[in-house]
Amino acid sequence: MYRARTPEPQSIATARAGSNIAFIKYWGVADPRINLPLNNSISMTLADLHTTTTVEWDTAGRLSSDQITIDGETATGKKAERVTEHLNLIRHLAGDRRYRARVVSRNNFPMASGIASSASAFAALTVAACAALELPFDRTRMSGIARRGSGSASRSLFGGYVEWEQGRDDATSVARQIYPAEYWTLRDIVAVVSTAEKPVSSQNGHSMAITSPFNSARVDSLYGMLQDVRNAITMRDLPRLGPVLEQDALAMHGVMMTSRPSLLYWQPGTLEVIHAVRRWREEDGLQVYFTIDAGPNVHLICEPTFEVEILKRLQKLGSVRSVITSGPGDGPQLLDKHLV
Amino acid sequence: MYRARTPEPQSIATARAGSNIAFIKYWGVADPRINLPLNNSISMTLADLHTTTTVEWDTAGRLSSDQITIDGETATGKKAERVTEHLNLIRHLAGDRRYRARVVSRNNFPMASGIASSASAFAALTVAACAALELPFDRTRMSGIARRGSGSASRSLFGGYVEWEQGRDDATSVARQIYPAEYWTLRDIVAVVSTAEKPVSSQNGHSMAITSPFNSARVDSLYGMLQDVRNAITMRDLPRLGPVLEQDALAMHGVMMTSRPSLLYWQPGTLEVIHAVRRWREEDGLQVYFTIDAGPNVHLICEPTFEVEILKRLQKLGSVRSVITSGPGDGPQLLDKHLV
Repeated sequence: MYRARTPEPQSIATARAGSNIAFIKYWGVADPRINLPLNNSISMTLADLHTTTTVEWDTAGRLSSDQITIDGETATGKKAERVTEHLNLIRHLAGDRRYRARVVSRNNFPMASGIASSASAFAALTVAACAALELPFDRTRMSGIARRGSGSASRSLFGGYVEWEQGRDDATSVARQIYPAEYWTLRDIVAVVSTAEKPVSSQNGHSMAITSPFNSARVDSLYGMLQDVRNAITMRDLPRLGPVLEQDALAMHGVMMTSRPSLLYWQPGTLEVIHAVRRWREEDGLQVYFTIDAGPNVHLICEPTFEVEILKRLQKLGSVRSVITSGPGDGPQLLDKHLV
Repeated sequence: MYRARTPEPQSIATARAGSNIAFIKYWGVADPRINLPLNNSISMTLADLHTTTTVEWDTAGRLSSDQITIDGETATGKKAERVTEHLNLIRHLAGDRRYRARVVSRNNFPMASGIASSASAFAALTVAACAALELPFDRTRMSGIARRGSGSASRSLFGGYVEWEQGRDDATSVARQIYPAEYWTLRDIVAVVSTAEKPVSSQNGHSMAITSPFNSARVDSLYGMLQDVRNAITMRDLPRLGPVLEQDALAMHGVMMTSRPSLLYWQPGTLEVIHAVRRWREEDGLQVYFTIDAGPNVHLICEPTFEVEILKRLQKLGSVRSVITSGPGDGPQLLDKHLV
């Protein structure tokens, strides 16, 4: 017997979400099933490093599995599984609908190079997937959903300066905006020293944090540092923010290095840039501070006035292959919902 | 009125002491005045990296101050002060004798490059100065005296594999031999990636350890690691020793990096060598492990059978400027007492 299907009014949407650079890092999970973190984290959402993702739900039932394209290539294996798992969660939240999805995602920066592509990717995926199903979720709720795909994606649901509250459970572990992007126009200058994929993805690394003898000490020390970062942002005070940035980046990498097995994300170029930043600051008074995510590249945080000078200096460092810059950006946007 | 001085029977002596490479590091002091450490440490005394020091006490009273020559240059400033302070201690132990000393010291390796020159220097100085005064001190006592000049010098008073007991006070914080040099002929291959002097001497760094949020955690974790190292040496078991070496080197540098101010002794070449060692081990099964003192150079610890292969591979790394090798050596020796 033939039954005409009524296509859902909305089954396709495209969202763009910015990556973010953490000032206080997320490292280590209390519950890996839901990415419940060991600590609050604070980041700046980036305007110019973003992922654009289209999700088209196959309401007609033609697909037998999700079809996922990332940066022009069909995703397979673990990458595809991770996306499908996230779609499963959203299917579940939508009342266990069995639609498969066509997902097309594109980053405007190299993946898996220490620039948090999973943050913008899972933020954009969440927003596009929910919008295409017309799920009535606000940003806070979507922050919690994005967190399940990648912890730091929870922060990319908001623009500007964002704090991800550790929370107690799946419902309470969500991000919120501290200040919008226009409150403080800091610059993030990413010195790319390697674009090789990471030997251990940060997703796997998070569950190893507790194997480091330093992990508890880092978590314990963060209470005051989080307050310092909030205050420094409120005061737009980079000389106050900067040393905390550097301290926490070094602490996170200290935890990583002493995990078992040991995670050493740094490459020789990482150290060339770190030493240069310190030298520029100490010898030339250039107000610039570094932070480093789970990768080898170094993010230089500065006020816009120093950007040109810093770019000029970075070009002279032998290990810097390219430079990507960004200011703070807004939260995710829905682009044209009806076009792939 | 003229009074003939009777010169003391023995007023000059020359001693040679080996440097040492720590498997469990000394980092941080409980009492900086006497270099009372926060933890036990274990090292291998090196045969081929040594300091030779002649001390001539000026029993005739011709000198108005100590005259100190290091590697052919007259020492001044803080370097000279540190030697004079050590001579003051020995003068005090000798009954407050007021003799000044002529000290001539020579290293057979570059100073202040992360190879512990102060360890061999203060060991040789202590032995030569005490011998020249005919002070009846055994090696244990001299270990405690050498510690006052430089903590790790306490270990260079003994040959082979040595543990410096943290102790409770000046009398009990001394080293002892675990096994003599011939018990296990490990090799230490030092990949020299920089010979520049350290920006912060380790002497100053020790008092900063407690400013790191990781310091207590490192100290707490050492109890089991010390036992692992003792057992691995007893069993001559490098695959057991090696991971502990690396873990503690990374932990010490994690403490250093997160001290306030942050100490970052590594240079780009440090990471090139670390990553190479891991790659050689994981991909090619080459049994070699790294450790790093308070400096940028990397010590590769291996069995003698792999030395040639490792030297060949190190030559291909762009950042390795030179290589110094050594096996375990004996404790300090007195050379001809009567010749400078």
